[in-house]
Amino acid sequence: MTQDSISRRRLLGTAGAAGAAGLIAGGAGAVAADRVSRDTDSTALTSIGTTSVAFAGEARAHGTPQAGITTANQTHGHLIAFDLAPGTDRKATAALLRRWTEAAREMSDGRAPDQDSSGIALDAGPSSLTVTMGFGRTFFDKVGLKDKLPQALSPLPDFSSDALDRKRSDGDLWLQLGADDGLVAFHALRTLQRLAGDAARTRWYMAGFNRTPGATTEPRTTRNLMGQIDGTNNPKPEEEDFDTRIFVPKGGDDSSPEWMAGGSYAVVRRIRMLLDSWDNLSLAQQERVIGRRKSDGAPLSGGTETTPVDLNKFAADGSIAIRGDAHVRVAAPESNQGAAMLRRPFSYHDGFSDDGTPDAGLLFIAWQADPMKGFVPVQRKLDRGDGLSRFLRHEASGLFAVPAAAGDGEYVGQRLLEG
Amino acid sequence: MTQDSISRRRLLGTAGAAGAAGLIAGGAGAVAADRVSRDTDSTALTSIGTTSVAFAGEARAHGTPQAGITTANQTHGHLIAFDLAPGTDRKATAALLRRWTEAAREMSDGRAPDQDSSGIALDAGPSSLTVTMGFGRTFFDKVGLKDKLPQALSPLPDFSSDALDRKRSDGDLWLQLGADDGLVAFHALRTLQRLAGDAARTRWYMAGFNRTPGATTEPRTTRNLMGQIDGTNNPKPEEEDFDTRIFVPKGGDDSSPEWMAGGSYAVVRRIRMLLDSWDNLSLAQQERVIGRRKSDGAPLSGGTETTPVDLNKFAADGSIAIRGDAHVRVAAPESNQGAAMLRRPFSYHDGFSDDGTPDAGLLFIAWQADPMKGFVPVQRKLDRGDGLSRFLRHEASGLFAVPAAAGDGEYVGQRLLEG
Repeated sequence: MTQDSISRRRLLGTAGAAGAAGLIAGGAGAVAADRVSRDTDSTALTSIGTTSVAFAGEARAHGTPQAGITTANQTHGHLIAFDLAPGTDRKATAALLRRWTEAAREMSDGRAPDQDSSGIALDAGPSSLTVTMGFGRTFFDKVGLKDKLPQALSPLPDFSSDALDRKRSDGDLWLQLGADDGLVAFHALRTLQRLAGDAARTRWYMAGFNRTPGATTEPRTTRNLMGQIDGTNNPKPEEEDFDTRIFVPKGGDDSSPEWMAGGSYAVVRRIRMLLDSWDNLSLAQQERVIGRRKSDGAPLSGGTETTPVDLNKFAADGSIAIRGDAHVRVAAPESNQGAAMLRRPFSYHDGFSDDGTPDAGLLFIAWQADPMKGFVPVQRKLDRGDGLSRFLRHEASGLFAVPAAAGDGEYVGQRLLEG
Repeated sequence: MTQDSISRRRLLGTAGAAGAAGLIAGGAGAVAADRVSRDTDSTALTSIGTTSVAFAGEARAHGTPQAGITTANQTHGHLIAFDLAPGTDRKATAALLRRWTEAAREMSDGRAPDQDSSGIALDAGPSSLTVTMGFGRTFFDKVGLKDKLPQALSPLPDFSSDALDRKRSDGDLWLQLGADDGLVAFHALRTLQRLAGDAARTRWYMAGFNRTPGATTEPRTTRNLMGQIDGTNNPKPEEEDFDTRIFVPKGGDDSSPEWMAGGSYAVVRRIRMLLDSWDNLSLAQQERVIGRRKSDGAPLSGGTETTPVDLNKFAADGSIAIRGDAHVRVAAPESNQGAAMLRRPFSYHDGFSDDGTPDAGLLFIAWQADPMKGFVPVQRKLDRGDGLSRFLRHEASGLFAVPAAAGDGEYVGQRLLEG
């Protein structure tokens, strides 16, 4: 951990009169002014607030996916699922999706939606806000679209580590919001929740977080609440098979109708970490469970974080470097016929249970072209053989079809509802 | 709201190979590298993570208060109260306070406490972590220190806007944690909660947030979840009467024994905002309730945010500019015989009630030398005449004596327990 620290008071001291007021009343604002950051090309001043992510998404091989999938993960995340209200027909649903799309588009661009008197997000830019919209299995029958239900939305199988709360699982509609500022994220969440009006009501809600930009001095894969570097082996967007693994091909395929072309499936799992048990292990014990060194994420077979895991390496004493039940071994694509998914999680912490144990863990969000070739085979394997599973409990689950981005003038899901 | 936005993808694109891995797996880390920020003197590179706040505090006229009172407010806040376990005597309490003090000192300095295998905060600096410790009224009798109970810890009076949940109020011991990174803040919270061991158990816990440094491009007093700029009229540390108002004088006074010299009293209120009702008001109606313009916080009597409120100003149509029940009028020091406190709040949002209304508002934390000359008279006035109170509900309350900072080798509260 770096020792290069300066006094926050001294830093603020240079801000003069404006900083003095801000020191107490609006610390964050005052600090912001002192910490305007630079683009790496050193030509343009930018800041966390003014960074935007295009709501329309960025084109890839199979189409243009929604923002919030290949977007760098943000500091604040909100997941919220809705059920359509009784009597909400396809037309009312389309109107809701249009309201959400228009508001999300405006807010992603740093503009306040029409008739927004809340002002919560004023002063800040969009802070990399993304809004991602998905459809659950129960959606289709309710709006008379059963013939368009993707095979890929078949219910996930049961796993032995499941202790699912059905009230916090599934849902007709799902929104994933992310932003690097808490007020911007709250404002977007509240705006979209209000826009649901009488058409849909909140089924469940979860909040998560990731590292603040600037909290680490070097680029670094983020850590989870077990302290483990998490995500090293994620598929990379520049890899040749990335699009095939993560996005539905043009025209659809066996498990997806054409309206899902360019889209992806989100598996959402609230995975509680049994941190009291975990923290009672020594560092060496924790590292053997994972198969990686905690300090830098290097595999126990040697090298650095990005060195490929050598599952056949033996230590000097003749013992296998990566244990048979180590998480990295069981989760490795080599152990799962190449099955892979793009994990883009948030950590969560919702206080403490009555016995004092933290209600904390991972809002696991995994993206794939077909859950039967991504999450399901990997989780089946983990469920049987992963030493880490003793320290985890899956408490909620959802599976959502997330179609491609809406083009200009379109709303998200228009090809489903009107195609 | 600024339109000066650049593509986050483009920003990340310049980070090269390391950035590519980080884009998906550890977005926050990758962004951090691109966003190293500059001190205002342009000579030293710094970052949000490497900024530290001295645990020992900074000397002021009446002594050296703990960090977390005049410290600029951080992005993440945790409030947690403990009750001593039956059988925890004064000696065991002193040992607990020593464990907490030592761990807080190390973490504030960016070092991991001894025997910490969690690693959650690895890679990040202290991220302006502060830990502030306080004592509730119920503490004193339990450890045989009733003779040292400050008069200033007398129970707060009832107010008509109170709907207090006693289980989430009060407590023997109170910790306030703040940091600009969520993993750093969680790590500190979890470390201190574990260090309580068998000596104390969690009574209540609340999480809050403020703006992320860098989310606004100009210094700006922060906004609350009503969208209102909040804190403009806070006492400023450079004002002549600041120390007298906020900190107990050397030697103590009528309401505080000597062990509280240099310390302060924290009034903690969980104030729920009835946002559905509030958002149904027009912008103009909201502004009349507050007495300030929402966009920039300028009083309706004219000027800019920092212009003194003119309570006697009339508009062109002959109506009074600041209404009789406007929040700024009722809360003004002129309306309360000069009573003042230092407000240093976090916003909170804990999801939605069954009826869909957000469980959101302000973790109001106010600091003063004596609550009877700060919070109590102001809240009495607000309770009777503030038009804003129709949109607020006080759901939890605490009052804690927060002694001066611990010197080298001391623990917080040592002068109370051993003095």
